[in-house]
Amino acid sequence: MDKNTRHKNAMEKQKAAVDDSIAKADVERGVAVLLTGDGKGKTSSAFGMVIRALGYHQTVGIVQFIKGVQASGEEIFVKEQLSGVALYQMGTGFTWDTQDREADIAAAIRTWEHATTMLSDPNYDLVVLDELTYMLAFDYLPEADVITALTQRPENQSVVVTGRGGGQALREAMDTVSEVKEIKHAYRAGIRARLGVDY
Amino acid sequence: MDKNTRHKNAMEKQKAAVDDSIAKADVERGVAVLLTGDGKGKTSSAFGMVIRALGYHQTVGIVQFIKGVQASGEEIFVKEQLSGVALYQMGTGFTWDTQDREADIAAAIRTWEHATTMLSDPNYDLVVLDELTYMLAFDYLPEADVITALTQRPENQSVVVTGRGGGQALREAMDTVSEVKEIKHAYRAGIRARLGVDY
Repeated sequence: MDKNTRHKNAMEKQKAAVDDSIAKADVERGVAVLLTGDGKGKTSSAFGMVIRALGYHQTVGIVQFIKGVQASGEEIFVKEQLSGVALYQMGTGFTWDTQDREADIAAAIRTWEHATTMLSDPNYDLVVLDELTYMLAFDYLPEADVITALTQRPENQSVVVTGRGGGQALREAMDTVSEVKEIKHAYRAGIRARLGVDY
Repeated sequence: MDKNTRHKNAMEKQKAAVDDSIAKADVERGVAVLLTGDGKGKTSSAFGMVIRALGYHQTVGIVQFIKGVQASGEEIFVKEQLSGVALYQMGTGFTWDTQDREADIAAAIRTWEHATTMLSDPNYDLVVLDELTYMLAFDYLPEADVITALTQRPENQSVVVTGRGGGQALREAMDTVSEVKEIKHAYRAGIRARLGVDY
């Protein structure tokens, strides 16, 4: 058998396997996605899903925990060009910048209220909770309340949570979990964080 | 020491470490990012970086290998709402759909020409080469040519390559490599791929 025929046979088998899996996945509902791990690409992936949802003219809400002191490219883009997208930011910066636990907790609770409003509103097709995991890791928000709000959201609503860690209970509550592992990072080779790529 | 003081001390240390790393990363140039692995979030992450770059009014080019038979949300969004972004798609679908190796190779070469044009044009701040790795895995494009074009691009241009695998030479040529691992996927629990999240 020549290379092209072997290729055709292998691809026929692969197509049958793919088609079979697609036929088996027949439950239609919103999905809960967790993007975790220490590698680059979690927040950008969530914003890529925002674009994906907007391509279908869906309604999108974004709540950003931590972020908000320094404007990022995606934030500027949403504010300037996506007026239909609801965006709320905690706006206090990283916890190692504020160094004030009580103020951080108050800000986290205030921000979480915006998240629960979206998570109980069936008008939102997609809700992004960027860096939410850190609020759990630092014990700023009660884990049980967060899990309940995520799992009891409207059936057709999808939710994307990003951030390192987050704990086992969160992983179990989500339908899809991707762990973004850092294999290498430009940073470690002395290359400065790049406008338009890193922030 | 109470919890809040311990927190403040720990955060002071962390801030010093973060500030130190930032000070050491002082090389200013475009970065090459590879998003690989079997988990969900690679293409969406690349499109998140597109948004990030557009937030700063940068010039973006996107070449999609494989994709293009079924319209995705991000593709619709780019075409309808981001007229300034150059987008070229191979348009033949997955290789297990075409099952025609010679036609795939011809399409890959044709598509690659659009990529090399962008990779040699300093007007592009960011070039996305979505699913390029499969062209290397299937031996549709000569690896050495691809690596050369990636590494000899204009100094201020960043490039993002997505797709599973891609090989060691590609990894070595990139500044940042993230491996997106599938921990779990809704698909495997019988949940259908979701419009606005999965495509």
